[in-house]
Amino acid sequence: MDSQKTPIDMNSKPSRTNETAEKLISFILSLNMKEGDRLPNEAELSSMLKVSRSTLREAIKQLVGRNILDVKQGSGTYISSKRGIPVDPLGLTFLAHNKKLAMDLIDVRIMLEPHIAAAAAIHATEEECQELLRLSSLHASLICAGEDYQDADTKFHEQIAKCSGNAVLVNLIPIISSSVYVSTTISDMDFRQTSIRYHQMITEAICRKDFLGAQNAMLAHLNASRDYFIHMDDTVS
Amino acid sequence: MDSQKTPIDMNSKPSRTNETAEKLISFILSLNMKEGDRLPNEAELSSMLKVSRSTLREAIKQLVGRNILDVKQGSGTYISSKRGIPVDPLGLTFLAHNKKLAMDLIDVRIMLEPHIAAAAAIHATEEECQELLRLSSLHASLICAGEDYQDADTKFHEQIAKCSGNAVLVNLIPIISSSVYVSTTISDMDFRQTSIRYHQMITEAICRKDFLGAQNAMLAHLNASRDYFIHMDDTVS
Repeated sequence: MDSQKTPIDMNSKPSRTNETAEKLISFILSLNMKEGDRLPNEAELSSMLKVSRSTLREAIKQLVGRNILDVKQGSGTYISSKRGIPVDPLGLTFLAHNKKLAMDLIDVRIMLEPHIAAAAAIHATEEECQELLRLSSLHASLICAGEDYQDADTKFHEQIAKCSGNAVLVNLIPIISSSVYVSTTISDMDFRQTSIRYHQMITEAICRKDFLGAQNAMLAHLNASRDYFIHMDDTVS
Repeated sequence: MDSQKTPIDMNSKPSRTNETAEKLISFILSLNMKEGDRLPNEAELSSMLKVSRSTLREAIKQLVGRNILDVKQGSGTYISSKRGIPVDPLGLTFLAHNKKLAMDLIDVRIMLEPHIAAAAAIHATEEECQELLRLSSLHASLICAGEDYQDADTKFHEQIAKCSGNAVLVNLIPIISSSVYVSTTISDMDFRQTSIRYHQMITEAICRKDFLGAQNAMLAHLNASRDYFIHMDDTVS
């Protein structure tokens, strides 16, 4: 089979590779494997899935590319901590990175995040609120110390998505917030101080289960960012 | 170089491959290449990017996996029509597909799509409105003929995202709507008839630039779907 194709052809057996990749995914799901779990070795896997070692290798490469598996040199193949969430999920690589894109991203956040904050106020557990308080303090102390706070900022918004209990948002929000930071850095000190106060307002509202308060505080926070972008130096555009 | 690694090692030269993939992306962007455009052949590319042919091949495989390139047998390497938008962008492969996931997806749509319809009413061009009218008619005639209308339904919602003029939404909405249809099929005839009327209401409001009308019609449409899911046979859950 496949005798008409040369072994170095990059697209050889594409359907065989895809089939094997899908089999591997079913295998992983059937065993309920979690991030960090190790797959059986190549010999065992190729025998279990009834495919050649070369096809198996191509399928594993594909799943590494899809952030489902990690191959560690001399150790084996593991379930990736990236949970299958790909590089550049929104296909932003082929959009021009300019002020328009930054505004489009913040507009999407304004559509989503006030609703998410409201849902978080209704559904957050005691432990989730404690973690939100911790992240809010971390964000404030990093800003006051003049250190890089963007990662803490992203984690704060991701924690609110977790508090909402919506599984789609838990995956969607990291995608959108990391995209925002690709295209923008805010250096204004007044703006940073204001964002500390907004994070505290949002946190307090969620922790006291005040859904309208959480929704409004988030809207005010994101609207302040939007206003900042609009009046920002136009050299970015 | 890389002498300590065997040639069949799946993870050999990972950083070299990643570097070359990034170089290829810069090359594509610098030439402003569009979907369907053909890349130079392997010899030319490896000389231009100053990498070995085997590294180039690995990098191309990676970009095929990321839906940025397509390799056509005996023809060459082309820019993919998938515009770099990956398979399963939301990482739903590892979420259980049940009624909760379907509800979470529709809740995300309820957060986003009424705002999108409002933006569409403000920004849609005459041509975009004509296309929306065409898709609305197509959706209705497929339902009346008892044929599969899900693709037409998805395209209708994608066209509204296009009308909004927000580049992030143009990529995000197809991701969310295709995920919705993975987990649900609606067979109720009354529900289908009602959705025809909602699509018409949304289309008319957008075409007469009535942003509040478009927003409310979209909210009513998605809320009807939400209500349908809630009262649906619980065997799915």
